Amino acid sequence: MIIILKNNAEKVQVEKLRQDMEARGMIIHESRGQETTLWGLVGDTSQINEDQLMSNKAVEAVRRIQEPYKAANRKFHPEDSVVDIGGKKIGGGHFQVIAGPCSIETEAQITEVAMSVKNSGAGLLRGGAFKPRTSPYAFQGLHDEGLKMLLEAKKATGLPVVTELMSPAHIELFEDVDMIQIGTRNMQNFELLKEVGKLKTPVLLKRGMANTLDELLMSAEYIMAGGNENVILCERGIRTFEPSMRNTLDLSAIPMLKKKSHLPVVVDPSHASGIRFMVRPLALAAIAAGADGLMIEVHNNPEKALCDGPQSLYMDEFDRLMVEIRKTEAFFAELNG
Amino acid sequence: MIIILKNNAEKVQVEKLRQDMEARGMIIHESRGQETTLWGLVGDTSQINEDQLMSNKAVEAVRRIQEPYKAANRKFHPEDSVVDIGGKKIGGGHFQVIAGPCSIETEAQITEVAMSVKNSGAGLLRGGAFKPRTSPYAFQGLHDEGLKMLLEAKKATGLPVVTELMSPAHIELFEDVDMIQIGTRNMQNFELLKEVGKLKTPVLLKRGMANTLDELLMSAEYIMAGGNENVILCERGIRTFEPSMRNTLDLSAIPMLKKKSHLPVVVDPSHASGIRFMVRPLALAAIAAGADGLMIEVHNNPEKALCDGPQSLYMDEFDRLMVEIRKTEAFFAELNG
Amino acid sequence: MIIILKNNAEKVQVEKLRQDMEARGMIIHESRGQETTLWGLVGDTSQINEDQLMSNKAVEAVRRIQEPYKAANRKFHPEDSVVDIGGKKIGGGHFQVIAGPCSIETEAQITEVAMSVKNSGAGLLRGGAFKPRTSPYAFQGLHDEGLKMLLEAKKATGLPVVTELMSPAHIELFEDVDMIQIGTRNMQNFELLKEVGKLKTPVLLKRGMANTLDELLMSAEYIMAGGNENVILCERGIRTFEPSMRNTLDLSAIPMLKKKSHLPVVVDPSHASGIRFMVRPLALAAIAAGADGLMIEVHNNPEKALCDGPQSLYMDEFDRLMVEIRKTEAFFAELNG
Amino acid sequence: MIIILKNNAEKVQVEKLRQDMEARGMIIHESRGQETTLWGLVGDTSQINEDQLMSNKAVEAVRRIQEPYKAANRKFHPEDSVVDIGGKKIGGGHFQVIAGPCSIETEAQITEVAMSVKNSGAGLLRGGAFKPRTSPYAFQGLHDEGLKMLLEAKKATGLPVVTELMSPAHIELFEDVDMIQIGTRNMQNFELLKEVGKLKTPVLLKRGMANTLDELLMSAEYIMAGGNENVILCERGIRTFEPSMRNTLDLSAIPMLKKKSHLPVVVDPSHASGIRFMVRPLALAAIAAGADGLMIEVHNNPEKALCDGPQSLYMDEFDRLMVEIRKTEAFFAELNG
Repeated sequence: MIIILKNNAEKVQVEKLRQDMEARGMIIHESRGQETTLWGLVGDTSQINEDQLMSNKAVEAVRRIQEPYKAANRKFHPEDSVVDIGGKKIGGGHFQVIAGPCSIETEAQITEVAMSVKNSGAGLLRGGAFKPRTSPYAFQGLHDEGLKMLLEAKKATGLPVVTELMSPAHIELFEDVDMIQIGTRNMQNFELLKEVGKLKTPVLLKRGMANTLDELLMSAEYIMAGGNENVILCERGIRTFEPSMRNTLDLSAIPMLKKKSHLPVVVDPSHASGIRFMVRPLALAAIAAGADGLMIEVHNNPEKALCDGPQSLYMDEFDRLMVEIRKTEAFFAELNG
Repeated sequence: MIIILKNNAEKVQVEKLRQDMEARGMIIHESRGQETTLWGLVGDTSQINEDQLMSNKAVEAVRRIQEPYKAANRKFHPEDSVVDIGGKKIGGGHFQVIAGPCSIETEAQITEVAMSVKNSGAGLLRGGAFKPRTSPYAFQGLHDEGLKMLLEAKKATGLPVVTELMSPAHIELFEDVDMIQIGTRNMQNFELLKEVGKLKTPVLLKRGMANTLDELLMSAEYIMAGGNENVILCERGIRTFEPSMRNTLDLSAIPMLKKKSHLPVVVDPSHASGIRFMVRPLALAAIAAGADGLMIEVHNNPEKALCDGPQSLYMDEFDRLMVEIRKTEAFFAELNG
Repeated sequence: MIIILKNNAEKVQVEKLRQDMEARGMIIHESRGQETTLWGLVGDTSQINEDQLMSNKAVEAVRRIQEPYKAANRKFHPEDSVVDIGGKKIGGGHFQVIAGPCSIETEAQITEVAMSVKNSGAGLLRGGAFKPRTSPYAFQGLHDEGLKMLLEAKKATGLPVVTELMSPAHIELFEDVDMIQIGTRNMQNFELLKEVGKLKTPVLLKRGMANTLDELLMSAEYIMAGGNENVILCERGIRTFEPSMRNTLDLSAIPMLKKKSHLPVVVDPSHASGIRFMVRPLALAAIAAGADGLMIEVHNNPEKALCDGPQSLYMDEFDRLMVEIRKTEAFFAELNG
Repeated sequence: MIIILKNNAEKVQVEKLRQDMEARGMIIHESRGQETTLWGLVGDTSQINEDQLMSNKAVEAVRRIQEPYKAANRKFHPEDSVVDIGGKKIGGGHFQVIAGPCSIETEAQITEVAMSVKNSGAGLLRGGAFKPRTSPYAFQGLHDEGLKMLLEAKKATGLPVVTELMSPAHIELFEDVDMIQIGTRNMQNFELLKEVGKLKTPVLLKRGMANTLDELLMSAEYIMAGGNENVILCERGIRTFEPSMRNTLDLSAIPMLKKKSHLPVVVDPSHASGIRFMVRPLALAAIAAGADGLMIEVHNNPEKALCDGPQSLYMDEFDRLMVEIRKTEAFFAELNG
């Protein structure tokens, strides 16, 4: 951590700061220039609060050198993490496709889609029972009824299931769920993160629409600091000025997250674009950029879907796409040696 | 609502769509151009799902004409709303300053600040017991202990209190709180919104860092649709590309929110800028732009504050600022007649 | 074009508007609802000014249905455009790699890099003689001296050359340049666009850092409306909130631009990320997403580069990457049939 | 300037870097921690290129401590600058309103508006002859004919005039213009900045839609480094995610620019919002936030305006607003002592 002192800092305040830092076990290396004096702090700075430093009137600016995340940091865990979700592995060379409808609508619907995506080669089934909707008047999901239908589809197909949790109050209902999704709007719902941190269930943590990668990793850190290391990061599009698609998929997040962290990275091209024709090129590009998995919306009848129809693939479309995904995945596995 | 049909739409699908819309009570006005056919839908379109329409292969685009919010909409409630918080009114010409520290740290601290801001003329006391922090390793607030201290300070000063709620699980602890704050990261924590919608306690709803004004109003709508109409909107800065301040205060939100909605609007210049010297000019500008209130961080010892020290005013600074706020408020009250 | 009339619009003003529209050859289809009246305008609306409509007090809102670009619009030119740059084709199945240093520094440097990238398989040579730098104190390029060196390198290798034009005043110097680059900061320098619109030289038009795809296409339209149809679009990263890389490459722009327009799309992963290790995954992902070409920075001595060293590939790195680019390109050419 | 060295940096490269820095007259203060080694560079770092440093394989990161602008920096010029525009002063306590139509349309129009705004109390006249329009098919201004009309209006009223320059090629036509405007899309048109840097004519430099304040100041620096110190900064709204207004006026830019720089700051609420009813509250708030002037669009017939009608004030509206602006300006002049 670097502290930049003000030119006109009062000696008394500088001295107080020095004593405070040394009392916390820091060693101070001073660089005194004509216009600025710098302190390089050596020691465990992770407990030092930048805000508190900034409140000292002698301080002009504070720059952190080390990342504030530890458990999620590749520096301390150089090997790729592999997360096992009901027998399906993601990360460290293991690639999975998670597929299914946005919302669970009926038992027939979710089972039909589950059967179909399984036959096409998907490794996990997705489906929402609790739906975060911008409008209170929009369909909010079937809740516990929906979860039951999803678990029936799991029983029928053997596919592990992924579904979104929106409140600590619902956590008991998720006991048989194989992976809990934390949605983009809850990425910084810290109380919810703490709750899933107490479980061992794998967590699919979606990046917030306007959040940085370090913020995403700090949210992963919340879960991991609680004891649950089974975290998978999910890039699902960020908010930009472009109005022609729902969000803008940030594929450059993949290599950067891989550099910063050992956690697996999954990409959701369906929510990112919100438009069916974009799912294929973005899915293939995500593989090329190094994603460990894909999350794709598939519906047995997109025109009647209660949610996200315009981006859901028809089951036969998905079947054809899976052939291409498998070929592309194999091509890059070989290219990357 | 306007539906734009594709040039090459199949007759069968257009016909299906027409029957579907008419079955829902819509009257269709058709404009057939050389390149595009438009349908103007007349009727109650608030229950019609744009996504579902977009899934019909005959549909090119859908444009909503009416706002999707009703309870919060000024069109249906032309008069300004006035919210009463423990005897202090905000909105419809009633102006209040909410002041206090970011975090409650000790009973002595919160009581000293409460006494001081009351003497300076603040109408309400703020102080956080549950703190949303980016890092799991940062101070998270004193929780129920902190709430008790806050209520002691309320008893000592008579000031109504405002404090942040982060989880439905904590709601019982907030019984004696006069106004519940929903923080910027929870603006779209819909399960939390539904919970405070069941209460009668006024809610201070902070705008999300990257959310539009309509999204803010839809979140207000969640609370109001549940039965709690005591909602106050709070502009607290949006995320932009500018790195020299924490966020960018959006004062243009004030006149636009006032046009769209009847709800009171409070401005928080402290969190927006994150820098002490900016609080004064932004506070005065917020009054000029039509704010119904201000929320300002004040601390008895900013250099030792556990949170947000760099933006907290010293108590004597706040005292001087309150004189200017009162003058400015009076000036604009007269100018606006 | 749709005009939404105000509820309380005065009859006189509505009538004036009707006459005005009809005088311009528009046919008006009216949809009268309880709360809103819509007009669908049928006719050539490309000359109608939305601002002027909005100024009529009877008008609530105006929504354009048709894209405002024509020459660049795929609707009117369904076939992919192919641009020939000194014998090298881009678009419609023709893929090219443009490589070279950020800045031309010496004749030895540009020639050495040119030879090297040619041997590795690059089709075109890039190199800047006029450099847009944020600081007036930074190296601004070698100007006409630099252009001469670039043309020497062209002579030595036979590679067509691409270089940036920053002012109409320099246009004569660019006579022997094979493709003129318009940089991201000049995407809406309309006077410059008009000037290159008068030439026949192909233009590489870089997307502005915070511009939408339609704005990019409108800038292409400026060039094409002037008579120069040889426009290649270039995605080079957009400004987002992510601080760990220079910009955020928007690969979703590729399929969307391909849908909207017939113009070729080239991707620049070097400027987008600003970091060497990201160039490879982003380059391969761009191919997967459907790019018609890549623009990659290569330097004979990145550590001594006067500009953009951290993102420039070493020549041997580029050589290895070209092998992978060719394999990837061949793989997707086959996959896409 | 701080250099952060990589943990695993090779000794040879570190030594090379040390020699290089010392050869440039830098004194290096080293702080060696367990995980990081920092160098604080003392000396004139303004000529050191961060990119070049970053290209050294031993370097992890570089952090600049000092601002890269000098001429525009308040640190080196603590007094407010005052710019004289044809006898009207802006800055250092001098406040001016610049008013007039977006575009010059006819001599009658510009003269009528000029007379009217002068009578209302405006100090300068604005009007565009060269118009930057997103579409090549939109009205582009009357060019030299328009400039003549503007100068006639100047003669008729005695008001100094402000108008936009879009190309170095037009600069001769601007000889009698009192202040040259550089538009938002040309803020980083560095060749144009260099040209106006050679003049003595005051320059109104508008902030780019997605540019930071430091970038704005670096563009001012381009002009000042050329020898023209008569620069006025203009905040005119930034691009955000909010769709209900054209741009989002950033009033927090005012106090921050005032802290960073000694240059005057003018605010344009008309272009920022693009909506008439927002001009008044934003204009008054800009004064409260410390603006040195306002730029407001006024038209004799907004409904027929060729450009920006929806945001232009009617002449009588402007007249009433000027009364309020004068009162507000006087109020804050007294409050600020």
